[in-house]
Amino acid sequence: MSINANNPSLKSWVNVPEDSGFPIQNLPFGIFRTSYLEPGAGIAIGEYILDLTYLHENGFFSELKLPRGVFNQKYLNDFIALGREKTGKVRNRIAELLWEENAELRDNKPARELALIPMAEAEMLMPVSVPNYTDFYSSIEHATNVGTMFRDPENALLPNWRHLPVGYHGRASSIVPSGVAIHRPKGQTKPPEADQPVFGPTKRLDFELEMAFITGKESRLGNPVSTQEADEYIFGFVIFNDWSARDIQVWEYVPLGPFLAKNFASSISPWIVTLDALEPCRVEGPEQEPGVLPYLRYEGKKNFDIELEVAVRPEGSQETRVCQTNFRYMYWNVNQQLAHHTVNGCNIRVGDMYASGTISGKDPSSYGSMLEIAWKGTKPVRMSDGSERVFIEDGDEVIMRGYAGRDGVRIGFGEVRTKVLPAK
Amino acid sequence: MSINANNPSLKSWVNVPEDSGFPIQNLPFGIFRTSYLEPGAGIAIGEYILDLTYLHENGFFSELKLPRGVFNQKYLNDFIALGREKTGKVRNRIAELLWEENAELRDNKPARELALIPMAEAEMLMPVSVPNYTDFYSSIEHATNVGTMFRDPENALLPNWRHLPVGYHGRASSIVPSGVAIHRPKGQTKPPEADQPVFGPTKRLDFELEMAFITGKESRLGNPVSTQEADEYIFGFVIFNDWSARDIQVWEYVPLGPFLAKNFASSISPWIVTLDALEPCRVEGPEQEPGVLPYLRYEGKKNFDIELEVAVRPEGSQETRVCQTNFRYMYWNVNQQLAHHTVNGCNIRVGDMYASGTISGKDPSSYGSMLEIAWKGTKPVRMSDGSERVFIEDGDEVIMRGYAGRDGVRIGFGEVRTKVLPAK
Repeated sequence: MSINANNPSLKSWVNVPEDSGFPIQNLPFGIFRTSYLEPGAGIAIGEYILDLTYLHENGFFSELKLPRGVFNQKYLNDFIALGREKTGKVRNRIAELLWEENAELRDNKPARELALIPMAEAEMLMPVSVPNYTDFYSSIEHATNVGTMFRDPENALLPNWRHLPVGYHGRASSIVPSGVAIHRPKGQTKPPEADQPVFGPTKRLDFELEMAFITGKESRLGNPVSTQEADEYIFGFVIFNDWSARDIQVWEYVPLGPFLAKNFASSISPWIVTLDALEPCRVEGPEQEPGVLPYLRYEGKKNFDIELEVAVRPEGSQETRVCQTNFRYMYWNVNQQLAHHTVNGCNIRVGDMYASGTISGKDPSSYGSMLEIAWKGTKPVRMSDGSERVFIEDGDEVIMRGYAGRDGVRIGFGEVRTKVLPAK
Repeated sequence: MSINANNPSLKSWVNVPEDSGFPIQNLPFGIFRTSYLEPGAGIAIGEYILDLTYLHENGFFSELKLPRGVFNQKYLNDFIALGREKTGKVRNRIAELLWEENAELRDNKPARELALIPMAEAEMLMPVSVPNYTDFYSSIEHATNVGTMFRDPENALLPNWRHLPVGYHGRASSIVPSGVAIHRPKGQTKPPEADQPVFGPTKRLDFELEMAFITGKESRLGNPVSTQEADEYIFGFVIFNDWSARDIQVWEYVPLGPFLAKNFASSISPWIVTLDALEPCRVEGPEQEPGVLPYLRYEGKKNFDIELEVAVRPEGSQETRVCQTNFRYMYWNVNQQLAHHTVNGCNIRVGDMYASGTISGKDPSSYGSMLEIAWKGTKPVRMSDGSERVFIEDGDEVIMRGYAGRDGVRIGFGEVRTKVLPAK
């Protein structure tokens, strides 16, 4: 038996609801725990988590010769460090086990009942320990919007923007998974009318809709990774909410970049959708004009057709969608980002997270931050409960969702959902 | 017996040369290996390393009830996570063992010979695994010099500079210890006369003389660390060379800060000098005017009197000192840096590194980077071999050294020495 999980006609014996983002063609990896199980690795299938620790300990991966205990860990780092070839084989083997025509697990009732955990019983944790986190700024629409608002509409893009994927280092320690509430941060701001800065809770708390890729292979200091090699290094993707405090940012960020405006928290969706699962969802990127330097040139389709949305749910109310966009419009692709990041010899670690920067489209309904959606506070957004938003308020929940659709198959990311609590 | 390692009259039975920075009052921690020993923790005494793994396994710390194997590791993180009280007791116990009047180890020839390793036989490795690295910009002389060169001499300091310790996130993965050579990085630059950016080796490779503190205590997301609490979080200090490629930096850094200009490498001295050892070297900091917001106020002496120097050694030649300065002049102190960094709830991890920013004094002989020393290329520096430098050339070794002196005792940091190899 040799199964390719990406085969669109595959079906699983596990019930997968039609609108589920977790069919047998996806099989994203995550770390979960329950009231009766310690943290360990699982994959999502329909409304269940398949417990990989259980399967490994009971010989279901014996032919793959995986390291002992590789799933029985708090993070996926050791697993993804096995490399794309090996993790791809594990994913295909899981598809084989879940395939409707394979009786191995399907007809082994005791094993099946222990291995399949209802998602409702589980808590999802950080999938990886993140040694380094970088944030790019790769949407031309977002960079143009910000440049228009804060600088000059005629020269919205800075001179370097079309020549390199602008990026900066972010804080790895404060990345949290979906479901972890955050407190409104306090900080130093300088209101335009004030002589001196003041201290207090941010008045301009914002989300930024981003995707992040996670590396599964280490590079050595001094050795660049080319755009062509980059695919070997990328294990998969999550949705990334780059929380931002705009008033803190404006006061602090010149000349060395964002710092406390960002590092109080970033939130991610807990399932890592593998690059393997996304291979069929590749699309051409936009034309880059002027042409880029040789180290940034690439071949093939390096953008991804991933539908994204953001909703805001005021406390005690229904959610309102405030953004609908697509990852496919990114000007700089992930291969270029990784090639640029390493061209000076900077080394990559397993578990590193590389976020895209805010993903905005051309239309205001596709802007990826409240700053842009409400255009610096000038265009309030009406919620379904009648209230208005220019930024995020205490009690609001921000929900980001995404999926890639192809051949009638939905490769979902699930969601990243974060409640904002009042400042402490 | 109860010994305080800071007692200036203590002497060791281990010979400590007069100009050594590693007397019994210092006892910095590091990770070393030899041709016959796996990486593990040691402390420096004179020209020897005391093997803490050996001492622990042979019962010399039995009264301290340390976790098994705490020294027998690639990094000090687990050890420093024991907290300042415990690590301080370990340091005092080591002083007791090394004290000239204590026969325990002195007269136990077999143990003594196994526990004391000549430094010449050992290689020093990274002392900690660094989960997060932040770089501040806390020398008013450095910030003024840079502002004068690149902006406006009349308004050299940006409006936020005196109100908060400006900082940004750096790359943790590329921090390497003294002795690891680096290659000149390549990157994108835009020469003033060019229409388009070009790619190639940096033409303006520079060092930045900094100190970095390392945290030994974790904080929880959402919980600020006050200036008063900061002392509990700081385990110790190293010298930090924040390598910089000035031409790459100028082209890339607006608007999100330095990125590839910095992340190709940072070099540190391998011995962590503990805050305990530095307690007697505290001095008053400069007056801060205007006054700072309440969360940045502090009590007591939070600056440190640490003499620092930088030398450059062209290949096959003698070294030339290019900078002599002191850490005491920093405008923003480490307690303020940590309080600012966490005031928004950003969480601290064990092993995090927080660098000071370039340490420059008032006099040109005390400037901490070639950019300042050679004033943007206009004042070449003569080397002892007759050659001139405006930036660092291939084959050069950059050596930084530091020590705190007090009561006739020299608390040394050793050195961070890095050779620059040609671009690959």
